[in-house]
Amino acid sequence: MAADRRFSYNGLKNFNGYGTKTPFLIGVAGGTASGKSTVCSRIMEKLGQDEIDHRQRQVVCISQDSFYRELNPAESIKASKGLFNFDHPDAFDNPLILKTLQDILDGRVCKIPVYDFKTNSRKLDEFVTIYPADVLLFEGILVFYFPEIREVFHMKLFVDTDADTRLSRRVLRDIRERGRDLEQVLAQYTTLVKPAFEEFCLPTKKFADVIIPRGADNTVAIGLIVQHIRDIVICNANLTGSRGSYLQSAAMMSS
Amino acid sequence: MAADRRFSYNGLKNFNGYGTKTPFLIGVAGGTASGKSTVCSRIMEKLGQDEIDHRQRQVVCISQDSFYRELNPAESIKASKGLFNFDHPDAFDNPLILKTLQDILDGRVCKIPVYDFKTNSRKLDEFVTIYPADVLLFEGILVFYFPEIREVFHMKLFVDTDADTRLSRRVLRDIRERGRDLEQVLAQYTTLVKPAFEEFCLPTKKFADVIIPRGADNTVAIGLIVQHIRDIVICNANLTGSRGSYLQSAAMMSS
Amino acid sequence: MAADRRFSYNGLKNFNGYGTKTPFLIGVAGGTASGKSTVCSRIMEKLGQDEIDHRQRQVVCISQDSFYRELNPAESIKASKGLFNFDHPDAFDNPLILKTLQDILDGRVCKIPVYDFKTNSRKLDEFVTIYPADVLLFEGILVFYFPEIREVFHMKLFVDTDADTRLSRRVLRDIRERGRDLEQVLAQYTTLVKPAFEEFCLPTKKFADVIIPRGADNTVAIGLIVQHIRDIVICNANLTGSRGSYLQSAAMMSS
Amino acid sequence: MAADRRFSYNGLKNFNGYGTKTPFLIGVAGGTASGKSTVCSRIMEKLGQDEIDHRQRQVVCISQDSFYRELNPAESIKASKGLFNFDHPDAFDNPLILKTLQDILDGRVCKIPVYDFKTNSRKLDEFVTIYPADVLLFEGILVFYFPEIREVFHMKLFVDTDADTRLSRRVLRDIRERGRDLEQVLAQYTTLVKPAFEEFCLPTKKFADVIIPRGADNTVAIGLIVQHIRDIVICNANLTGSRGSYLQSAAMMSS
Repeated sequence: MAADRRFSYNGLKNFNGYGTKTPFLIGVAGGTASGKSTVCSRIMEKLGQDEIDHRQRQVVCISQDSFYRELNPAESIKASKGLFNFDHPDAFDNPLILKTLQDILDGRVCKIPVYDFKTNSRKLDEFVTIYPADVLLFEGILVFYFPEIREVFHMKLFVDTDADTRLSRRVLRDIRERGRDLEQVLAQYTTLVKPAFEEFCLPTKKFADVIIPRGADNTVAIGLIVQHIRDIVICNANLTGSRGSYLQSAAMMSS
Repeated sequence: MAADRRFSYNGLKNFNGYGTKTPFLIGVAGGTASGKSTVCSRIMEKLGQDEIDHRQRQVVCISQDSFYRELNPAESIKASKGLFNFDHPDAFDNPLILKTLQDILDGRVCKIPVYDFKTNSRKLDEFVTIYPADVLLFEGILVFYFPEIREVFHMKLFVDTDADTRLSRRVLRDIRERGRDLEQVLAQYTTLVKPAFEEFCLPTKKFADVIIPRGADNTVAIGLIVQHIRDIVICNANLTGSRGSYLQSAAMMSS
Repeated sequence: MAADRRFSYNGLKNFNGYGTKTPFLIGVAGGTASGKSTVCSRIMEKLGQDEIDHRQRQVVCISQDSFYRELNPAESIKASKGLFNFDHPDAFDNPLILKTLQDILDGRVCKIPVYDFKTNSRKLDEFVTIYPADVLLFEGILVFYFPEIREVFHMKLFVDTDADTRLSRRVLRDIRERGRDLEQVLAQYTTLVKPAFEEFCLPTKKFADVIIPRGADNTVAIGLIVQHIRDIVICNANLTGSRGSYLQSAAMMSS
Repeated sequence: MAADRRFSYNGLKNFNGYGTKTPFLIGVAGGTASGKSTVCSRIMEKLGQDEIDHRQRQVVCISQDSFYRELNPAESIKASKGLFNFDHPDAFDNPLILKTLQDILDGRVCKIPVYDFKTNSRKLDEFVTIYPADVLLFEGILVFYFPEIREVFHMKLFVDTDADTRLSRRVLRDIRERGRDLEQVLAQYTTLVKPAFEEFCLPTKKFADVIIPRGADNTVAIGLIVQHIRDIVICNANLTGSRGSYLQSAAMMSS
C-alpha cells in the first residue's frame, strides 16, 4: 500500500538492489540562535531517532559546526581573544563538507571530525562515524553559501527568526551555558556575528525551498517535515524489506 | 500499515463512525500576484483532483475572491471608476467566510456565491456547491486577517514573492488577460493595492506556519504540501474504507 | 546678509512684530535605544544650547517620556510587575502632548509634567517650564503615531537602527544604568517592547522626511540638522534684533 | 557675519589663498527609478543653478551614467539584444570615475565622456567640461559600491523608494520616453536590473549618512540639502570675495 506514494527526488531510481539507496539530503540554514539545531532535535525526537543506536538510525543529523577547520597559530591567538570570525565562510573546512556529503549521497560510511570549542581545534584521533541512512539533516549558518554544497541538497530549509529575537536567545545561551560575560557576548555579536550574518548568511535565504518562521516553537512546520521524512523512511523500508520497522513503531508510540 | 502515521490535527479524534470526519483546513495567503492560486492549482493537479468530478474530490480549493460582498450603489460607482478598494478587509463578506469554513469543518455540504468581476456583484441564483472532503485549501490575500477566520486553519501557508516581482506579474496579467490599460493598472496598484497590502496583508505573514518563497515555481515546497495532503487522504481512506482510491491510483500514475 | 536665506516653513510669515514667531518643530522618532535622545543631545551640544539657561535657549528639546499618563491602581500593579505596556500609544497623555505642541507653536510659555519612573506617576507639583524658542526638538518612540500630533511637525526625522543593535544597547543600558536583571530585561523586550515597536512605531517610519541611519554615531547627518537649526536661529536673530547672539558666538567657539 | 557658520568638512582648511578650495562632494545613490536624478534636478533648480552657464555654476551635477565604459564587440552584441548587464559594477569605467572625482577635489577643470545609449558607446570627440565649483552632486546606482570612490564623498545620500514603486516608474518611463515594449521592459528588469540591485546597490545603503525616502516628492529633505549647499556656497563666497553672488540673489528670488 505504501507504494502508492512517490517522491520527487530520485532515491528510488538509484536503488541498486543491494539495499543501498541515495539518501534524501535536507539542508537547514539560518542565523545564529535562529533555532536551526533545535528544529533538527525536535525532528529527531518526533521520529524516535534520538533513542536509537547511531548505526541503526534511518535519519542522521550533522552540524556544520563539526567542520570548523584547524586554525593556524596566528588565527588561534585571534580566536583566544574573541577576534577570529567563526561566522565567515572561510572558517569551515568546506572541501571536507562537500566530500562528506558526497560520501553520504553515495551510501558510504564516513567519519566526521569532533571540534573542541575550548581549544578551537579538532580533537586528535576522535571522530564520529556516520552510517548510511535514509535521510540526512545538515544544519548550519552557511550551508547554502557555496554553490557546490548548496546544490547537493534535495530540500533547503531556512529557519527565519528576527534578529533581535536571535540576539536575545544567544545572550541567554552564551551566559548561562557557556559562562560568558554579557559585554563580551554583545561586543562579539556586534563586531563579528552580525556583519557576517548580513554579508554571508542572509543572502542565502533566497535559495530556500521552504522558510520556517520562528524556529522550534513552530510545531506545524516541524510536523510537516517530520511526516515528509517518515514517508521517505517507510517507503524505503517497504522496498528494502527489513529496515524502517523501528520508525513505524516509534511513530505509533509518539502519536 | 497506514495506521502507523498520525497527524497533529484532530481529524481522527472527531471521526464519528458515520464516515464524516473533520477536514484538514489549509489557509494560503500572500500579496496580489504572489502565486497563491497557481500554487493551489499545482497542488490540485499533482493530486489528480482537477480531473475528478466535484462531488468526488478529496481535496477542495476555494478562493476568498468568491466572497466579495455586494456593493451598495455608491460603492458600485466607485468600483466602476477603479476607486473602490477591493484589497481592504471590508470588501469581503467575512461572516459568510467564517460560516462556510465552519460548515466545511462540520462536514456539511455548503454553497458559496459566484462573484461577477464585470458587474462587481454576485451572480443571481448562481452558487458553487462544496461537498465534504478530506482537505480544504482556502486562498486569498486576507485569509489570515481576522482572528476568528485565521484560527480555523490547521496549517497556514504564506506565499512570499517580492513586491516588484508581483507587480510585474500583475501588470502582464491585467493587460493580457483582462485587457486593461497600463497606466490605469499602475495607478490602481499604487493608490489602492500597494497601501492595502502593506497595511492589511503583510502584517499577517507573522501568523504563517510555513513560508513558501517565489510561488508556483517552487516545486520542492509544492511537493512537500502535496505529499502532506496525500497522506491525510490515504489515511482517511484506510480508516473509512471506500474513499481515497482514486487519489491513490492518480498518485501512482503521476509519479 | 542673512536675509539671503529663506526657509520653506512659515515662521517668518507669522512674525508679528512683537518678537514672537512660529518656532520650527522637529519630530524625532525611532525604536527603543535607536539613539533618538542621544542624537538630540548631540544637536543641543553642538549648538551650545546645553550650556545656556533654560529661559535663554533658542533651541528646546522635549521627550515624549515626560508625557506618560497617570496610571490607575490596576495599571500601577501591572507596571510594578513589568507587565504594563509603556510602548503602547495609549500609555501617553496624547491630548496634553497636542496641547503642549500647539502652545509652543503659538509662542506661549508652557509647563510640562515630570514623570517619575520609579513610582510610574507624575511628580506632584513638579513641572518643567518651556519658554518660547526658535526650534523645538520633540523626540519619542511614537511621536508620529497620531495624525494630529504628526502633522504639527515641520520636519520629521526617523532614527533607524537595526533591531539587534537596539536590543544590544538597551540591555547594556538597563543593566548598567537601571540595575535591572538580564532575564527580566529580555523578557520585557520580547513580550512588550518588540511587539509594540512592530505594531505602532515601525509603521510610522513611512511618514519621515529624513531617515538617519545608525543614530548618534552619524556625525554627518547630525551636522546637517545642526546647521539647519543654526540657520533658522540666526535668521530669526537678524530679524528680531537681539536674540541669537549667544548661538553665534557658541558656533564660533565650537567649530 | 557668515563666519559664524562652520562645516564639518575640511574645505576651508584646504583653502589656499589663490581662490581654489576643496569642493564639497555629495554622493547620491539609490535603485533604478528611485528618484536620484530628479532629486538632483530639484536641488539644482531650487539653487537657480540650472539657469546659469556651466562655467559659472557653484554647484555641479554629474551622473554615473556618463561613465559607462566602452563595450567590446561581444558585449555590444549582447547589449543590442538587451542581455548586457548595465547594472553591474563592471559596466562602468571606475578608474575614470575615481580620477574625475580626484580632479574635481583638487579644483582642476576636467572633461567627462558623453555616452550614447543608442549605440552603447561613447560619442567620439565629444566631452562635457566640468569647471571647479563649490559643491558636486554625483548620482548613480552604484556610486557607493567601490570603497575608493565611496570614501571620496563628504556626504552620502541614499534615495530609498520601494521596489514596486520604482518598477512602476521605470515601466512608464521606458515605454513613454524610450518607446520600449512592456514585456521586454519587464523581462530585462526581472533578469538583470532586479538581481543586480539586490546584489550590488542595496548593500551599499548601509554606508549612507542620510536616507531620503520616496525621492523627488520629498520636499522637506530636498529643502534640507538645498539649504546645506547654499550655506557652503555663501560661506565660500564670503571668504573668496567675488563668487556666490548669483546664488544669493537666486535664493532671494526663489524664496
